Amino acid sequence: MYRFLDSDMEGKQENKVKMKKQMNQLDEYDNLYERLSAYARTDVYPFHMPGHKRADLNFTNPYKIDLTEIDGFDNLHFAEDILLKAQKKLEKIYHSRKSYYLINGSTCGILSAIGALTKPEDHVLIARNCHKSVYNAVKLFHLKADYVYPKIMNCGIQGNIEPEQLEQILEKQKNIRLVVITSPTYDGIVSDIRKIADITHKYHAYLIVDEAHGAHFSLSEYFPESAVSQNADLVIHSLHKTLPGFTQTAALHVTSNRIDEKQYEQLEEMLRIFQSSSPSYLLMAGIDRCVDMIERSGSQLFEKYQKNLIRFYKACEKLIHLHVLTEKDYEEYQIPAADHGKILIRTDSTSLDGRQLYHLLADSYHLQMEMYSARYVLAMTSIMDTQEGFDRLFWALLEIDRQLDEDDQEQTAQTEHFLEKVYGVREKVLEISDIVHYNIEETDLHCCAGKICAEYIYLYPPGIPMIVPGEKLTDEFVKTLEKCCQMRLQLAGMKDRTCRKILTVACESMDRL
Amino acid sequence: MYRFLDSDMEGKQENKVKMKKQMNQLDEYDNLYERLSAYARTDVYPFHMPGHKRADLNFTNPYKIDLTEIDGFDNLHFAEDILLKAQKKLEKIYHSRKSYYLINGSTCGILSAIGALTKPEDHVLIARNCHKSVYNAVKLFHLKADYVYPKIMNCGIQGNIEPEQLEQILEKQKNIRLVVITSPTYDGIVSDIRKIADITHKYHAYLIVDEAHGAHFSLSEYFPESAVSQNADLVIHSLHKTLPGFTQTAALHVTSNRIDEKQYEQLEEMLRIFQSSSPSYLLMAGIDRCVDMIERSGSQLFEKYQKNLIRFYKACEKLIHLHVLTEKDYEEYQIPAADHGKILIRTDSTSLDGRQLYHLLADSYHLQMEMYSARYVLAMTSIMDTQEGFDRLFWALLEIDRQLDEDDQEQTAQTEHFLEKVYGVREKVLEISDIVHYNIEETDLHCCAGKICAEYIYLYPPGIPMIVPGEKLTDEFVKTLEKCCQMRLQLAGMKDRTCRKILTVACESMDRL
Repeated sequence: MYRFLDSDMEGKQENKVKMKKQMNQLDEYDNLYERLSAYARTDVYPFHMPGHKRADLNFTNPYKIDLTEIDGFDNLHFAEDILLKAQKKLEKIYHSRKSYYLINGSTCGILSAIGALTKPEDHVLIARNCHKSVYNAVKLFHLKADYVYPKIMNCGIQGNIEPEQLEQILEKQKNIRLVVITSPTYDGIVSDIRKIADITHKYHAYLIVDEAHGAHFSLSEYFPESAVSQNADLVIHSLHKTLPGFTQTAALHVTSNRIDEKQYEQLEEMLRIFQSSSPSYLLMAGIDRCVDMIERSGSQLFEKYQKNLIRFYKACEKLIHLHVLTEKDYEEYQIPAADHGKILIRTDSTSLDGRQLYHLLADSYHLQMEMYSARYVLAMTSIMDTQEGFDRLFWALLEIDRQLDEDDQEQTAQTEHFLEKVYGVREKVLEISDIVHYNIEETDLHCCAGKICAEYIYLYPPGIPMIVPGEKLTDEFVKTLEKCCQMRLQLAGMKDRTCRKILTVACESMDRL
Repeated sequence: MYRFLDSDMEGKQENKVKMKKQMNQLDEYDNLYERLSAYARTDVYPFHMPGHKRADLNFTNPYKIDLTEIDGFDNLHFAEDILLKAQKKLEKIYHSRKSYYLINGSTCGILSAIGALTKPEDHVLIARNCHKSVYNAVKLFHLKADYVYPKIMNCGIQGNIEPEQLEQILEKQKNIRLVVITSPTYDGIVSDIRKIADITHKYHAYLIVDEAHGAHFSLSEYFPESAVSQNADLVIHSLHKTLPGFTQTAALHVTSNRIDEKQYEQLEEMLRIFQSSSPSYLLMAGIDRCVDMIERSGSQLFEKYQKNLIRFYKACEKLIHLHVLTEKDYEEYQIPAADHGKILIRTDSTSLDGRQLYHLLADSYHLQMEMYSARYVLAMTSIMDTQEGFDRLFWALLEIDRQLDEDDQEQTAQTEHFLEKVYGVREKVLEISDIVHYNIEETDLHCCAGKICAEYIYLYPPGIPMIVPGEKLTDEFVKTLEKCCQMRLQLAGMKDRTCRKILTVACESMDRL
């Protein structure tokens, strides 16, 4: 059981009252801008996106520089002057063949990349742990999707995509035109992109890597090798996740010579479709500032960052009950590489679950984590994190750790087994884009087994689907869903937010199958 | 001929040298953020978007409030707390049934609205002067498009959509499911939405109004009535065009009771597809600030704005050669209504063309206009414009006017006639989305007649297509294109930027037709 040390009880309480007050005050702000401003005045430390970590970076009044495409300021959609130069700086940093600013997030980069390399009815192979936008592209472009499932490592963390497994599918399904992989994952797990690219190309398909969480990889040797240098064809980077860009900024890189002139044109057409025709100069200036910072002082910043991380991981060896994942854990699970910038804190051998640790850190220590899962918590870090921030996290973990008894050892195995079911293999009956041709009805959770699901159901964050429209609902799946509810994991996607009904393909439509 | 008054010559020259220097200095900034910041320090007055006019509005350091979906800050894609409240404020202001924040511009609002109300192969009727995003939606959702052409008024300004013309098409083509109209146009021309809505609904179709340029209409009686209160089904507003929102912010309103629960769901799904899954809190805070400003001091700001406009139009009666369009002109051309916030300055009866006046105002007066066309210049205004700004524009126009001889009267008629051809009716041979099934080739401009165009060609701004993929190229069209080049109008969309080649459907593909 978790309990406070008696000696600390008083100070804790006082602190808690103060925090409670501060948080209650936040709720009083009904106005978004004011609540955001009030939050900026609290001492909450952000172990989450965006990667600028709300640092006090110099930036002028945003209204002053929020322009439009007037003379001298180019046009993002047909860049030939300052915005072309700005994008060329990205090419230089990432050694890409061509790079594009994205002002509608990695989301629009993924839609555009997939749209550029496919035509309707094409077969694509996508890693099951891809972002929702990949599934959206499958629907939008009327593609036929097969999935390659990542293995599940401890804590229910989804692992890498095995090249051998990929090859088996490509060998069997010869008409696959495109492979889409997410690496690193939200949790920082990296797949062997070089091998995956070689296999993909051997079977005459293209490889898109959603490296949204790995924009920092190329910038320091401390991190895994980036997909941009491993022969992927198109790579998408978020600039606000692990770098100090504004939220909603990203980059798309063409990284192989397999993209021909026509595909470049299609890609640029897609970018014009999925991005506002009035791109924000504020967001673009933010990208420019981010790139500039990397060019000017990237090496020092990454050196400092690396030192902070090494020091933090070393200190965390002192933890007895809580466990921070390290290289050794990844080796054990045969993960090719992992992003040390993602700090995964396991609670398996304690009485705390991920949710409880997450809230404990937030409420009692003002440390806002990125997410929690059943048995772990994720802290995101970047070059903008301070030593003080890392120290606060370490001391909080140590204090919590010292107050924990060792118990519930058996929970670990249970959880692992359970989460294998959450992300288990489903049977595809219909293509996502074909659902539109069938009648849809709401079905009570207990009558769902055997029916075809007509909506996405996923855990949020990170938003990886547990089931996709067109897949078969089973008894086991329904039980898994109920367990998720019991564990208070955040289910999303379902129309019925109470999780009592699921949208399914209607019976009379089923007869047509 | 345009000439300087002798007495002014010296001062002019001095001023010009100073400006030249200032502008040259701008070019020295290779860095986007720095060039934007340097521009903010010039005395150039913005008669263009965004509507906040780079005013010195209070806003904190953007890095401080650029957050992500942490506890207490809701999730735009599943809003239920502060972002739901924020969007409800929009509903209150616009008396809509439901309003959505858009952080990927009106662009994503249009894609989402069209996607929500159609299924593949549906017939849609779109105003020919719609924004490029409407055409993109037609392609993306595999729709069959018919067009209703606006009439052409003086200076080649595109007029309103005639309800009678719309009815004729709907009567003939009974399977049209959706009508999309742009009102006001980029130039501020308003169609009779109430009549258009009634006709559209009579033929069992839905009406989407792209009112991107009319977000201020509901907020003051001085402006035309908004589509939100005229029985349109969905209405899209840009918040950065005529209101003080950040560039790339917009709103989508559900404004009729004809949208059923399923369509709401589809609409929200579309918004989740076409907007980043990491929506910018900076942009959203900007929307919130804009709404807040309207709620708190909208009536005073609009009153001041109205006074400034009335005063400006009155003063412009003094102009002898240049002509600022007023109510009287619109009446003459039987335009139902026009946005007085859009100032259209005609150069027809002078030796200056639109381009020359535009550059004269920029270079000699530091007044940056929104756009120029063959024979007019467009100044955009908003509640954030100052009396000083209006005065600077008036005095500049007066000074230029006094130095103009009356000549080239006959050009007017010629231009008008020419621009009727630019936006003339084209013959549709293929649907936009069908082009993908044919081989495409580059054809020399002089061998194009009779072939099918495979790309968009438009004048930018505003980006209304002269021809759409799948339409027939004619001798007359080729001549019109050459004339545009001679007149140095900004052609865009063509792969060959030198305008010597056009993408066409290849001969061998043609045989299949």
